[in-house]
This record gives sequence, C-alpha cells and structure tokens, in this order.
Amino acid sequence: MPLVSPHAASPLIDGRQSERAMMVRRGVQGRLAAMRLSVLPELTLPNGRRADLIALSPKGEVWIVEIKTSVQDLRVDGKWPEYRPFCDRLFFATHSGVPAEIFPAECGLMVADGYDAHLLREAPEHRIAPARRKAIVLQVAQAAADRLMRAEHAIAAIPA
Amino acid sequence: MPLVSPHAASPLIDGRQSERAMMVRRGVQGRLAAMRLSVLPELTLPNGRRADLIALSPKGEVWIVEIKTSVQDLRVDGKWPEYRPFCDRLFFATHSGVPAEIFPAECGLMVADGYDAHLLREAPEHRIAPARRKAIVLQVAQAAADRLMRAEHAIAAIPA
Repeated sequence: MPLVSPHAASPLIDGRQSERAMMVRRGVQGRLAAMRLSVLPELTLPNGRRADLIALSPKGEVWIVEIKTSVQDLRVDGKWPEYRPFCDRLFFATHSGVPAEIFPAECGLMVADGYDAHLLREAPEHRIAPARRKAIVLQVAQAAADRLMRAEHAIAAIPA
Repeated sequence: MPLVSPHAASPLIDGRQSERAMMVRRGVQGRLAAMRLSVLPELTLPNGRRADLIALSPKGEVWIVEIKTSVQDLRVDGKWPEYRPFCDRLFFATHSGVPAEIFPAECGLMVADGYDAHLLREAPEHRIAPARRKAIVLQVAQAAADRLMRAEHAIAAIPA
C-alpha cells in the first residue's frame, strides 16, 4: 500500500458519499454555519446509527440532519426515528430534484444546492435530557478534535 | 492575493508557531492521544488567554498544556496561573534542551520530542465547576468542528 495515494483527494473526505450527497452536505453546512451552528459530519451515535450531520447551536442545542438524495434513498430508511432521541431537532435535507412532500411532516426539511440550503420546514423541538446532551456534546468535541489532529498529521506527512 | 498560495503548507497549520514549538506540540499530541485524550490546539479561553493545547479525557476531564521552548519563553509568561480556572489539570511541555527544574512545581510537566512525550511530573487535580466544564466542552466541540469544516472546504477548493 503506498503511503500517499494519488487517488485520495483529501484526508478530510472519506469518499463513501455520492457526489450529490456531498453537494447537499456542503449546502447544509453553509446554511448551518450562517446560523452560527457548528457542524460535524458522520457521527456514530450510541445506538449504532450514524448521523450524516450533527450540529451544535451556540447554546448547546443539538440538531441532526439526515441527507436523502432520492425518493428511493428515503424509502429504504425505515429507521430515521432512531435519530430523534439524540437531538433536540431532527431534519431531512435533500436537493430540488426530490419532491418535498415525500418527507415526514414531523421532521424539519432543508433543500440544498452546493452553496446554501433553504429551510423549507422548521423541525419541532423535543429536548434531550441534560445527561445525554452532555455525552453528545463531549462526543462531538472528541470526534472533531481527533479528526482535526489526524488530518493535520496526514497533511504534514505529505512531502511538499 | 492569490487564492492558493504556494507558501502555505496546509490550511490546518497557522504558521505562527516556531518549528520547535510545533515539534513539542506533535510529541504532546501523540502522548495525549495514546492516553485516549482528544486534543485541540490554540483555543482562546473566556478570559482572553489562549491555551496552546486543550485536551478532553474520555470522561470529559479538561487538561491544558502550555508549551515553552526556552528558559526565556517561560520567564516572560507571568500569567500562566490564569489558565488554571479553566482546566482540571495544568501542564507545561518542553523539550530536552530546557532544564526541567525551572518549571513551577505546582504544574505537571511533559518533555517531548517530535513523536512522543514523557510525563515527567503528574499535574495536581483542581476540578472545575460543572457549568464551566459544560461551557468549555461545548467551546472545544464548536471550535474543532468549525475548523474541520473550514479545512475540508479549503482543501476541496484547491484544483486537483
């Protein structure tokens, strides 16, 4: 295995997401950042489900955003209610090619392009208990700091 | 200003630290990671002081590590006690060229090379209050997630 692969575009991108999903992700990241939330992609929750995006508001409120890039993509996911216990607000995010009406009315909805996202429907609030909030915020801190350090060291290891 | 500078080695490294300080930092990062702490560099605390390294243990304990690369570097810093209220344990970190005995006995001490660090003296514990711990862990999560997102987008913007 070569130390530096010519195919890996960036140590920060894991390559498992489709281009369309990455586009929606970038748009949602932009929107959440503009709303002053801090966003981390791909966090595995204590129940084993992996959140596409988890975001922390300045007050420590937790949002989860699940990205669906096709009708089929949503239909095969019967497990989305399992994200709810780990966030104060749950959103779906998609692009303009997917009909908005297929998404569950009890979740928020964002429609993104690669630059920004439109908040089509606010998500109802279901506040998580303080102990769980504490654990999730700590987990976000650990995952983000660990990934940042690995990325820093991976990039430092590439000859200039 | 060019969009991509040939001189900037990485969007993850801000370039204000000396090479020696970066060496100590890498060694301490390696040691703390091996101890299963998550480490974030350069976090500005609520009192305006900037921690060289802040680390979170798996249980959410907060450590701060201040890097000193010369005798002079320590002598000019009369303000290190101001880090103490924001962590459970406070350490200095240096390299083998600086005499260990100049460092305050009431703080922990690590001696690093570029790969690892030796924990020469444990730091006494002075537990921070729950509300402050909560605020600091949230701040680490926000800063780390924000930097990771900026780095991801900066790297994605560089033509392949």
